[in-house]
Amino acid sequence: MGHDAWTLHPDRALPSDASVRPIAREILERTRSLPIVSMHGHVDAGLLARDEAFPDPSTLLVVPDHYLVRMLVSQGVPHDALGVPRRDGRPVETDPRAIWRTFAAHWHLFRGTPTRYWMEHVLVDVLGVSERLSAESADRVYDHIVERLADPAYRPRALFERFGIEILATTDPATSALPDHALLAEDGWGERVVPTFRPDALLHVDRPGWRDDVALLSRVTGTTVDGYRSLVAALEERRWAFVEAGARATDHGHLSADATPLEESVAERIVADALRGTVSREDAAAFSGHMLFEMARMSTQDGLVMQLHPGVLRDHDPAVLAARGPDVGYDIPLPTEYVRALRPVLEAFGHHPRLRLYLFTVDEDVFSRELAPLAGVYPAVRLGAPWWFLDTPDGMRRYREAVTDTAGFYNTTGFVDDTRAFCSIPARHDLARRIDAGFLARLVAEHRLDLDEAVETAVDLAYRIPREAYAAPQRGNAFPSATATTAAKEHV
Amino acid sequence: MGHDAWTLHPDRALPSDASVRPIAREILERTRSLPIVSMHGHVDAGLLARDEAFPDPSTLLVVPDHYLVRMLVSQGVPHDALGVPRRDGRPVETDPRAIWRTFAAHWHLFRGTPTRYWMEHVLVDVLGVSERLSAESADRVYDHIVERLADPAYRPRALFERFGIEILATTDPATSALPDHALLAEDGWGERVVPTFRPDALLHVDRPGWRDDVALLSRVTGTTVDGYRSLVAALEERRWAFVEAGARATDHGHLSADATPLEESVAERIVADALRGTVSREDAAAFSGHMLFEMARMSTQDGLVMQLHPGVLRDHDPAVLAARGPDVGYDIPLPTEYVRALRPVLEAFGHHPRLRLYLFTVDEDVFSRELAPLAGVYPAVRLGAPWWFLDTPDGMRRYREAVTDTAGFYNTTGFVDDTRAFCSIPARHDLARRIDAGFLARLVAEHRLDLDEAVETAVDLAYRIPREAYAAPQRGNAFPSATATTAAKEHV
Amino acid sequence: MGHDAWTLHPDRALPSDASVRPIAREILERTRSLPIVSMHGHVDAGLLARDEAFPDPSTLLVVPDHYLVRMLVSQGVPHDALGVPRRDGRPVETDPRAIWRTFAAHWHLFRGTPTRYWMEHVLVDVLGVSERLSAESADRVYDHIVERLADPAYRPRALFERFGIEILATTDPATSALPDHALLAEDGWGERVVPTFRPDALLHVDRPGWRDDVALLSRVTGTTVDGYRSLVAALEERRWAFVEAGARATDHGHLSADATPLEESVAERIVADALRGTVSREDAAAFSGHMLFEMARMSTQDGLVMQLHPGVLRDHDPAVLAARGPDVGYDIPLPTEYVRALRPVLEAFGHHPRLRLYLFTVDEDVFSRELAPLAGVYPAVRLGAPWWFLDTPDGMRRYREAVTDTAGFYNTTGFVDDTRAFCSIPARHDLARRIDAGFLARLVAEHRLDLDEAVETAVDLAYRIPREAYAAPQRGNAFPSATATTAAKEHV
Repeated sequence: MGHDAWTLHPDRALPSDASVRPIAREILERTRSLPIVSMHGHVDAGLLARDEAFPDPSTLLVVPDHYLVRMLVSQGVPHDALGVPRRDGRPVETDPRAIWRTFAAHWHLFRGTPTRYWMEHVLVDVLGVSERLSAESADRVYDHIVERLADPAYRPRALFERFGIEILATTDPATSALPDHALLAEDGWGERVVPTFRPDALLHVDRPGWRDDVALLSRVTGTTVDGYRSLVAALEERRWAFVEAGARATDHGHLSADATPLEESVAERIVADALRGTVSREDAAAFSGHMLFEMARMSTQDGLVMQLHPGVLRDHDPAVLAARGPDVGYDIPLPTEYVRALRPVLEAFGHHPRLRLYLFTVDEDVFSRELAPLAGVYPAVRLGAPWWFLDTPDGMRRYREAVTDTAGFYNTTGFVDDTRAFCSIPARHDLARRIDAGFLARLVAEHRLDLDEAVETAVDLAYRIPREAYAAPQRGNAFPSATATTAAKEHV
Repeated sequence: MGHDAWTLHPDRALPSDASVRPIAREILERTRSLPIVSMHGHVDAGLLARDEAFPDPSTLLVVPDHYLVRMLVSQGVPHDALGVPRRDGRPVETDPRAIWRTFAAHWHLFRGTPTRYWMEHVLVDVLGVSERLSAESADRVYDHIVERLADPAYRPRALFERFGIEILATTDPATSALPDHALLAEDGWGERVVPTFRPDALLHVDRPGWRDDVALLSRVTGTTVDGYRSLVAALEERRWAFVEAGARATDHGHLSADATPLEESVAERIVADALRGTVSREDAAAFSGHMLFEMARMSTQDGLVMQLHPGVLRDHDPAVLAARGPDVGYDIPLPTEYVRALRPVLEAFGHHPRLRLYLFTVDEDVFSRELAPLAGVYPAVRLGAPWWFLDTPDGMRRYREAVTDTAGFYNTTGFVDDTRAFCSIPARHDLARRIDAGFLARLVAEHRLDLDEAVETAVDLAYRIPREAYAAPQRGNAFPSATATTAAKEHV
Repeated sequence: MGHDAWTLHPDRALPSDASVRPIAREILERTRSLPIVSMHGHVDAGLLARDEAFPDPSTLLVVPDHYLVRMLVSQGVPHDALGVPRRDGRPVETDPRAIWRTFAAHWHLFRGTPTRYWMEHVLVDVLGVSERLSAESADRVYDHIVERLADPAYRPRALFERFGIEILATTDPATSALPDHALLAEDGWGERVVPTFRPDALLHVDRPGWRDDVALLSRVTGTTVDGYRSLVAALEERRWAFVEAGARATDHGHLSADATPLEESVAERIVADALRGTVSREDAAAFSGHMLFEMARMSTQDGLVMQLHPGVLRDHDPAVLAARGPDVGYDIPLPTEYVRALRPVLEAFGHHPRLRLYLFTVDEDVFSRELAPLAGVYPAVRLGAPWWFLDTPDGMRRYREAVTDTAGFYNTTGFVDDTRAFCSIPARHDLARRIDAGFLARLVAEHRLDLDEAVETAVDLAYRIPREAYAAPQRGNAFPSATATTAAKEHV
């Protein structure tokens, strides 16, 4: 176990049990060369549109990774030392080598975490680092990466090809005119990099910047959004624009899963209040629930997959939000209820042939208690992959153990990597395939599944299911909104 | 791993670990031939009373199995195609062979689920199917089963004997006059098939059919139920009638575990409102909690085991309920609280020598947090087996891991199969014994238990504990209701 | 597997998997001889101050162990038979041999429980028992222990040395003058046995005995506690007295984790009401939340670690409380929320360089959902060890699996034994080291960690981390309370 040569073990993340591992290896072998279908993530489309060299190791791997930043902060490393910018413009560390040294000196903190697993894959497999990261090796590793990044083979599109990515979905504000996707389309990459419609900013009408976003929505649609009806119409129009640009899905990050519709007159009053800046917090919360219902209704028309990620209290520390902005690691999960919250939308559209509602959670208890039972009966519902804090070797294993009994494999969506870190995409998909191979291998070793079935299932999970689950919406068959609910009731 | 011959592997569902499996095998060997004690389930007593041949494979195995129906529905198979009847009388598929083909074509959906495990056992071991189910083999398998079902050896009573069932408890409405059990008693089967008292319909006074059930209760007791006191008296009388018919237990499927008693005057007012059809939803909920308390008090008198299964939102989709009725797969678990909810009943009767209160849940978190701590101190309380969505290989393993630390083995009730599917009873008990053997074997392999202790415990769990836990109530020592609470307090 | 000779297997509680166990053994070997750092427990300091022989086996091992008593009670053994005293003075069993026989006859109830594991270690390893406990062997085992206890080598201080305890923290009421610690200090044991400040009794102002405790606080501080300000001042003074006596930490056992500060005028009114005996339950609850916030503020001044253990409903059965008093096994966990509850205190002090807030729970779901995410970002927060009902082989394993992904190893505190049972201290620390060795070994076997890293981490968890996490507070740098919050905000 010398560590001078840093390599990835071929059996990494497979079960240790000698009765299971050979079976897992055999299953994994059948999924290793499948293309990556990455249908939910946060890679910047501009990265691929511009296709420029990555600037330096720290800007690429450290500063924007909130998993990594939060761990270092938790052990007393100041945000400043990691180059996380301040809103007040006061100076932070800007030397990427200094930031890299700080990271390397704290490498031991990541033991047992997914960051360790992914980063090791990125460094060794993507970037060709061959000695273990440490305070001592930090500079040599840094220099090695700098050298690689200068090589055109390490530009975004070249890596995209090398990673075997078939399709990558980005996440984009509803108000985005999608200029990067237009550039990509011009280059013939329109089918390979597709946008995802994220309207959160517009659906939370008590957000400080909400009126600015409404103004932006007016501009991008060329309409005047001055009330509830024009807001809905503009959102519908943007959804169709996203569909035209290749979008497969919408994405919704609400605090709760509540999707209770309001009377239209109530919705109108709330939007009027919000436009005047006098909306109450309670009304705003009710309206965001109403709009989730509306989003489901719109999905029955335009066919976009609806992805719901509730249950995270954003920006737990207001002082950090004020100083550094969002997405620096202070989002914390909450207990989240789905069964009653989603009842209105499932009553209306749970059997609608065009609704595809994929549910994610960071509240693990919910998997076996609520999400698997819902996904295991409503045709419209599928269980999203284990998300965020749960997107880990043990988290993914617990997920399969918790949901398979009741939802099986085919009511799940397949893996989504949900990453901003472009270079970690292959690590994440590879890990998911390993965990699924290990889970399936245990079923085989316990004589609960035959090997041929396990292999077929592994291939389905890695490739066929996510392709089909996020298939492009088909036109036609749209119900006029007034009759959508009635129509859905025909399908029970 | 050819699959032309479909067989059950002798090591199925045992741990794969080569250090554990041989120990598990040895433990399992000691429980394999023990009789089945099936103290909680939903087999129709009429089946055994009439002892007629089963009609066809689909009516036997597909249509009434809500686990199976819900999975097929979740993947887009319409209820109609599965022959699930409509309340409006519109036609559904009636050809059992067509239904069977639909099922067989979707067999892959069940990979990793308990339905797959049980069905494989039923097909191979009970029905002698020897080739793997698939769209291609569907007709041959169907014909094979038809042939078997025509054989008298496959009639219900013959199977009962072959399965090694010592005693089977059915579940029966409080208003049932138990005619099937009377027929069985006439045939000398009275000790082998016993009823269970289920008063849910009478305890939820805002149910649409409640007044009809009250009328039925009046008829079956020959009394006039026209208020709270006569309702309680009639329920007490029915409980004694069930005891006479051999019942061991009551069964309660409330939405919450609340068991808070009301003032008698309040209870009287609520029942009066309900009889007039003007009861509020809040009052009805409070009354059902009150009646759980009353049921516990009655158990201290007649000695019936009290089984509580709360925490399921029934009929999540009202349109499906309207179209197809209940029990077609739309019951979804909710987070459920037991500690405060049960405090009144435990304060009153938790140390009462004649209360046996068995708690079930479909909210897994509750096992280690609430149920094991309660069962691990109150003499009246035991932990029921993992129930419904949790009655699976991994669910049963997680249950033992979650509860044994705090409640041990001897504060659990032993396995209950909870099934409507008569032919699956041996599969379910066999599986439970395998999981317990595997769990105990791990303790032995980790040197936390000696082998002789593990074997004794396995036998206790499979046979001795359920027999003792559901032993027939002993007469006498009944406290008059007014002093029951005081009397119980003497035992702390 | 003969059991005439009762021994502890060297591989006990290590993973059975033959690919993992040898690695676990190697890791364990490196932590076995490390001293015990026991920073949270309930051993009576008087025991070590007096250093007298233990009276008899039952008084030592049975009567005061609420884990053990509750299990026997749950299976129908009366408290009286176990010698648990009655408050009304009515007689209970006083013959320690009779109590021991009752315990021994029910030894099988503990199979699979931590009591079994710890007791086996105590009997075999500490007390040299060499035959398995049973009804049959009860008297011989009893006599053997009596003989040992008469030997000076089995007095408390001799065992302390033999156990390799480097430092032991006791738990002491805020009103204690710490006379036993003073005696220990005189004997040169002041650095080895240190107090912990537990102010619960003073912070719950609707407790029946609260005014008596306030009077005691006045006496011990030589001040007049007659309102909120003098209460706070007296608490601050007692904290400094504990610091002087070597304390490292405070300990807080509130019902909820709420730590919301009140306006000072509101706090003043509540204390005034409480002193008059007219405080409402709601006000008392709000005040206890306010005082948690205050305790955090005080920790930023005196540097004491703040340990928070919420979420247990004490004395679930009021009749048992009335008859036997607290701590006889009727404390039951509740679902507990931390994210919103702790937000005020983390907003104020979550980045304060002198706050060390360690969070414990008996609600397992909280580990991955709330506690690991909080500990994984706030520098002030660490995750306490699995506590009470979770302090078990499988509970500790699940804890590492649940928290390591998000919090890593270095945001945990290392093991705390939390025991009143002095003789079980080595068993508990040994078990924790075994579980951590097994967990780390699995990571190595799955190629997720290198062996040298695993060994270093194991040593850190067993020794370095708890020493550092509970390091003596350093003087100086105290913020005046008025500016503490502002000061903390500087650190984001």
